[in-house]
Parts: sequence; C-alpha cells; structure tokens
Amino acid sequence: MSTLAIVPNSLLADGLTRIQQEIDSAFDSLLSVPEDQRARLVEAMRYAAIGGGKRVRPLLLAATADMYGVDRQAAVRAGIAIESVHVYSLIHDDLPCMDNDALRHGKPTLHLAFDEATAVLAGDALQCFAFEVLADTATSGDPFTRIELVTTLAVASGQNGMAGGQMMDIAAETASFDLATVSRLQQLKTGALLGAAVEMGAVLGKVSVEGRRHLRAYARDIGLAFQIADDLLDYEGDEAAAGKALRKDAGQGKETFVSLLGPERAREQARMLVDQAISHLSNHGAEADLLRALARFIVERDR
Amino acid sequence: MSTLAIVPNSLLADGLTRIQQEIDSAFDSLLSVPEDQRARLVEAMRYAAIGGGKRVRPLLLAATADMYGVDRQAAVRAGIAIESVHVYSLIHDDLPCMDNDALRHGKPTLHLAFDEATAVLAGDALQCFAFEVLADTATSGDPFTRIELVTTLAVASGQNGMAGGQMMDIAAETASFDLATVSRLQQLKTGALLGAAVEMGAVLGKVSVEGRRHLRAYARDIGLAFQIADDLLDYEGDEAAAGKALRKDAGQGKETFVSLLGPERAREQARMLVDQAISHLSNHGAEADLLRALARFIVERDR
Repeated sequence: MSTLAIVPNSLLADGLTRIQQEIDSAFDSLLSVPEDQRARLVEAMRYAAIGGGKRVRPLLLAATADMYGVDRQAAVRAGIAIESVHVYSLIHDDLPCMDNDALRHGKPTLHLAFDEATAVLAGDALQCFAFEVLADTATSGDPFTRIELVTTLAVASGQNGMAGGQMMDIAAETASFDLATVSRLQQLKTGALLGAAVEMGAVLGKVSVEGRRHLRAYARDIGLAFQIADDLLDYEGDEAAAGKALRKDAGQGKETFVSLLGPERAREQARMLVDQAISHLSNHGAEADLLRALARFIVERDR
Repeated sequence: MSTLAIVPNSLLADGLTRIQQEIDSAFDSLLSVPEDQRARLVEAMRYAAIGGGKRVRPLLLAATADMYGVDRQAAVRAGIAIESVHVYSLIHDDLPCMDNDALRHGKPTLHLAFDEATAVLAGDALQCFAFEVLADTATSGDPFTRIELVTTLAVASGQNGMAGGQMMDIAAETASFDLATVSRLQQLKTGALLGAAVEMGAVLGKVSVEGRRHLRAYARDIGLAFQIADDLLDYEGDEAAAGKALRKDAGQGKETFVSLLGPERAREQARMLVDQAISHLSNHGAEADLLRALARFIVERDR
C-alpha cells in the first residue's frame, strides 16, 4: 500500500492554482457576452462560473487525464463541462425555493446579484453549455470519446445521479434517514459527479472500462469522504473561510454523517475512506501523486 | 411551387395521433419510477412529460426522418430528447419567478401539483435526460450521428438558442422592442428548437449539411409562423381549448407580432410564411406531404 507516500504539498497547491487559472480562462473565452438582450444571461453565467470555485472536479478530471498523457486542452474543456454542471446545480440549489442561500464563494448568490428568473435560466443554459462543449471536436477528435463523455456526464447528473440525490436531500428534511440512506443520498448527490470527473479523465485517456475499475473505486471513496468533510464543515467550520452559510443541516433537521455518527467517528470514517481511496492507486507510481494529494485535501479543506 | 398541393387532413391527424402515442409510450418506458426517495422526482418528470402535449417537435423530427427512410424507433428516441427539452423549458417557464402560470395542458402546472423545488429539479433532470437518450447507442449505432444530434440540440437550447430567447422575452416586459427584435427573440425562443427538430431528423437520415439547407429554410419559416400563431392565440384564442391562461402578453406590456402589426396583418404574415415554408419543399414529392400539412396546422391550431 502506498497510503503513506509522502506527497509534497506544493504538488497539490500548484495543481489547484493551475486548474483554477485554466478553468477561469476557458470560461472567460468560451462565454463571450453577446451585444443584444441576451447579454444579461451570459453575464449571469459568467458571474456564477468564473472565480471562486475550488475546481475540485476539473482537477480530479485533469489529474486522471494527465496520468494517461491526455492533451491538457482536452482535459480542461472536459473540466469546463463538469464544472458547468456543478455550477448550475449550485445556482439552482441556492434558489429561494430550494436552500434559499444568500452567499456563495463569498459573494451574493446569483438570484440576489441578478434575479430569480435569470438565475433559473443561467443554470439551465450552463447545463446545456456543458454538453455543447463536450460534443465539440475541440474536446476530442474521436466521436466515440466525445459521446462517452456525454453519456458519463449525463448519467451522473440526472435522476440516477446528482438530481436524484438532490431529491433525496429534500426528502431528508421531513424524513428520518438511517446511515445507509444518507450514504446512498450522498453517493448520488455528490459522489456521482466526483466519480464522473475521474471517469471522464479516463475516457479521454482511452482507458478500458476494466482498466478504470480501480479509479471508480478511488472516486467512490473520496466522494463519501468529501461529503463527510462537508458535513463536518457545516457542523464546526468557519463561515468566513467557507464563504457560505454553515450550520444549516441541524437547522433543517436533516440527518447527516455527523448527526448519525458524531463528529469524532465521522472524522475517523473520512480519514479511513481517504486511506482506502489511496490504496486503490497502489499500482500507480508517482504519476498518481496528485490524485493521492487530492484525496487528503478533500478531508482537510476549510471550504 | 407545390404550395397549393392538396394534403389530406387524415395524414396530419394520423401523424399526430401516432407520434403522440409513440412519445407517451416511450416516456412511460424510459422514465421508470425508482423504489426509493427519488420516486417523487421521476413522478414529477412523468407528470410533466406524459400526456397533453401536441408533440409538434417530435412530429417535425419524425416526419423529416421518414422522408429519408430512418428507422422509426431512432426517430422516436430523438423525438423524446427534443420533447424533454421543450417540456423542461415549460416547467421552468411556468415557475412563480418566471411566468407564474397555474395551468398547462389543462392541468395544474408542475410546481402547483408538486412543489417549486421539485419542479426546478424535474426540469433540470429532463434536460439531462435528453442528452442521455441521444448519446445512447439505441438512438443510432453511428457515433458521428449521435454526437451531431447532441450538438444540434445543445446549440438550439442554450444561450444562443432557446435560453437566450427566454432572456430576451424577460427583457421584453420592460423594454419596447421593434419588429426586428421581436422576430429575433422568437427565432431564438421558439424557432431554434423547431429548427433543431427538422435538423435532427435530417441528421438521422445522414443528409449532408448542404442537402439540409432547404429544410432549415422550411423550419425558419414555420418557426416564425408558429410564434405569430401563438401571439394570435394569446390575443383572441379560447382558454378552454388552449388549456392554459391567455391574454398574458398585453397584461405584461410585451410587444408581439400582433401588437406591432395588428391581428389582420399578423394573420396574413403567418399565412405567407407557411406558403413560403411549403415552397422550400418543392423538390420533394408526396414524401414531404406531412411536413406541408404540419406547416398549415401550425397556423390553424387552437392550442
């Protein structure tokens, strides 16, 4: 097992800085503001998409793609697609009829900075934009690769993925979920898209379905660890560092990993999952160090 | 010119009945309700997607595909995709923060029958479902065809298509648009998706971009005629027949084809556009009769 491999912190810091710049720059050039009444829509998409995000999903995707020598521009474009889906889900999640949040990445949520109708539309357009970017020949010259990217992202985002998890999350406000149901909810709501990020990197690398098995296992473990860390952040994090409202789960009466396990056992579980995630990469050498560092980052982040 | 070709009414009636049954049946089998807390989401998707719609877009798609001998099942699947995008746009359009409508296809809108959060999510999941269906090998064995379907639908739905048109439509409530701007708005809001329907039928038929030129011209004309008919319906239609609230444009102070041209000139314009649309099909024989009948139906419908 390579769980104890020492990963230089600079690898992660550099990786995050690089992908954040790449994603911001790609959003900036791909989302150009038209000179008519659609301007407000694209300005809203840019407001939500550019700056502020950690870009964990694009980094997972690019770090996986890098292991297989994928052209960086292709990985960044696929990263734009998965981040567009993530951003649209945050826009819609923040709406008054959903979580009614006022703060996201330290600035007013989109429906407050613009208005609700524009926020609904900007989210819709960003989801669509994701598939437009993936289907473009600039993402891959191989139509099999492009169509597999579309399928992977669509399945992870819809009723059997993220949207399904969000529906369960709404149900969690009025039902009392056990640990297995909370795990299933989070696997769909957060895990599916994190898994898709790794999977899309492997698709770009033309790795066979069999050859991706260990990557999917890695993604499943970090997905769960990510959510436990999120619950811990909600329970005991610093709002200024997080750039969003915390202490919401308890207020909504939702069962979480923290409410069900307590903070100590939850933290222990997250660390165990990270070790397990890293163990799935044991057949890889230094080329997987960024994925290993990312796994650790996921439970240690403060936002 | 074949503008005066006599098209038997039964061709259109049979075509509509057939596609309505096919689309309802395909939605029914593709959207199966899971046995967990995601059930409510899929039930909401089914509530909005099954029954009630005219299915103009799937019929346009299938009628075009039929001209080129496309397998009917492939056309129905692509029809499910474009109808999913249309249905999701209606769900989100009906939300309180958008048009705040209470009635759709003669029954309560989704956010009233379920709740707002579920309506937002069901719309999101339906958009995603559209791309999942297109990317599946069951729609076409050829990855080039599948990816071209994805691109066509994505471009027509996003900020440079339907969503962009909806943004302009919101701006129309507070700005005073001239005829050129109203035309542009409607070309995006309604025309882009109607055009995509015809285009997707041609893509399935492996018609070259050059060979589709006359079909795009046909689609552009019926798209505009469709919207003028919608404006006339809003101005003088029967609410019971339409199954939705009418007389909204005047209440919102929006400029429409009717407010700018008057009902008589608007009606004349719509008829002229239909004649022009049909003239683009002059190189086709009887195989285009359904598209010709559809063009006429578009200005004569009462809902």
